Amino acid sequence: MAGKLYGVGVGPGDPELITLKAKRILDEVDYIAIPKTASNKDSVALSIVQEILDKKKEVIELYFPMSYDEKVLKESWEKAAKSIIYRLDGEKNVAFITLGDPTVYSTYIYMHKLIKSKGYETEIIPGITSFCASSARAGISLGENRETIAIVPSAYECQNLDEILDSFDNVVMMKVSKNLQYIKNKLKDKELLHKAVLVSKCGFEGEEKIEFDLDETDGEKVSYFSTLIIKRNGV
Amino acid sequence: MAGKLYGVGVGPGDPELITLKAKRILDEVDYIAIPKTASNKDSVALSIVQEILDKKKEVIELYFPMSYDEKVLKESWEKAAKSIIYRLDGEKNVAFITLGDPTVYSTYIYMHKLIKSKGYETEIIPGITSFCASSARAGISLGENRETIAIVPSAYECQNLDEILDSFDNVVMMKVSKNLQYIKNKLKDKELLHKAVLVSKCGFEGEEKIEFDLDETDGEKVSYFSTLIIKRNGV
Repeated sequence: MAGKLYGVGVGPGDPELITLKAKRILDEVDYIAIPKTASNKDSVALSIVQEILDKKKEVIELYFPMSYDEKVLKESWEKAAKSIIYRLDGEKNVAFITLGDPTVYSTYIYMHKLIKSKGYETEIIPGITSFCASSARAGISLGENRETIAIVPSAYECQNLDEILDSFDNVVMMKVSKNLQYIKNKLKDKELLHKAVLVSKCGFEGEEKIEFDLDETDGEKVSYFSTLIIKRNGV
Repeated sequence: MAGKLYGVGVGPGDPELITLKAKRILDEVDYIAIPKTASNKDSVALSIVQEILDKKKEVIELYFPMSYDEKVLKESWEKAAKSIIYRLDGEKNVAFITLGDPTVYSTYIYMHKLIKSKGYETEIIPGITSFCASSARAGISLGENRETIAIVPSAYECQNLDEILDSFDNVVMMKVSKNLQYIKNKLKDKELLHKAVLVSKCGFEGEEKIEFDLDETDGEKVSYFSTLIIKRNGV
């Protein structure tokens, strides 16, 4: 019988924010699959679980280049899936670890679809999202009562960003580093700049930053792992 | 020195989906505060952590009636906060447990604001949201690549629901039981009915239901704990 593929969310950064189930699955599987952008880069997901992983656990490194080229991406997915399937065919179980939650903008989902479509058993273990952890650290709600929440992964390329900012009670913008200056100007125009909080490297010990005064934030010097939360009713 | 208040997300239902940190805090605190709608009702949050709680742990039951009356709600928050503060003043730590995540439509946040504003130390421990767990169980993504996600807590009362369904790649509707027939009709009109999945009682053993064919779903017989996920690009 072929092995099973698990997509395991390891949460946003704090190693204590993984679930009991994620920990159990990581303990039980034969292989841990680790996504990397290149062989000489570190895996953030791995750094989160490093301490709880059995040192003898076998690891598969998978490479997913940072690219917008559909062909490059698809080739990397096919190659990674092949590498996982090789272990599943050997009756081994594989846990693919992923930052945050596997269903929220994760590369895992492409593995999941490819491997599931070939008839293998798959299971997704949810994780704490960066936006839930960020609102927790900032001590604010993401949404109350009947308020709506919009999640925008790539603000610069979002065609209806104005409409969203004008009509939603709460807006989460993920990975805002590249276009923070553009967003700051937009928020200023809409009188939302002081209704926002920026959380960078949430849960990464000694590196986390929570900023309520975005006037002071240098848009050019913000971590890739930054989440902006805008609350129409104030933060 | 006064005690500290923790808002602890216990996740969507599966007791294994609480975090290592939530478990540690529940082990360490002096009191567990439990939200109930009435004294003769069970607490769902309590049922999730029951097995891991020390049987001798002291419990505070707090009552939050299901009401839209602002005055009734505020009175219940004030009364509950008073009950927590009494323990904090006695130098005891209190963990208020909450279904899902404390920042996502949770009553905890009102306790948090009230008690924090009086100068007490507070900390939010994030939890797995019902929508992340639901997408995981359905084996689909909540959002990929540059797709947007909208979260609507109360579809019937959402004034711009049409606009949201027309412009967002992914829409999550929480607690849809009351108005499922209305939503089904709307999705049919927009040719989205077969691009939706309904997850009820996600993670509740033996009670969970995952429905991809909403034509078959009786809108009148759906659990209160139901999440509808609509994906423009298909489920």
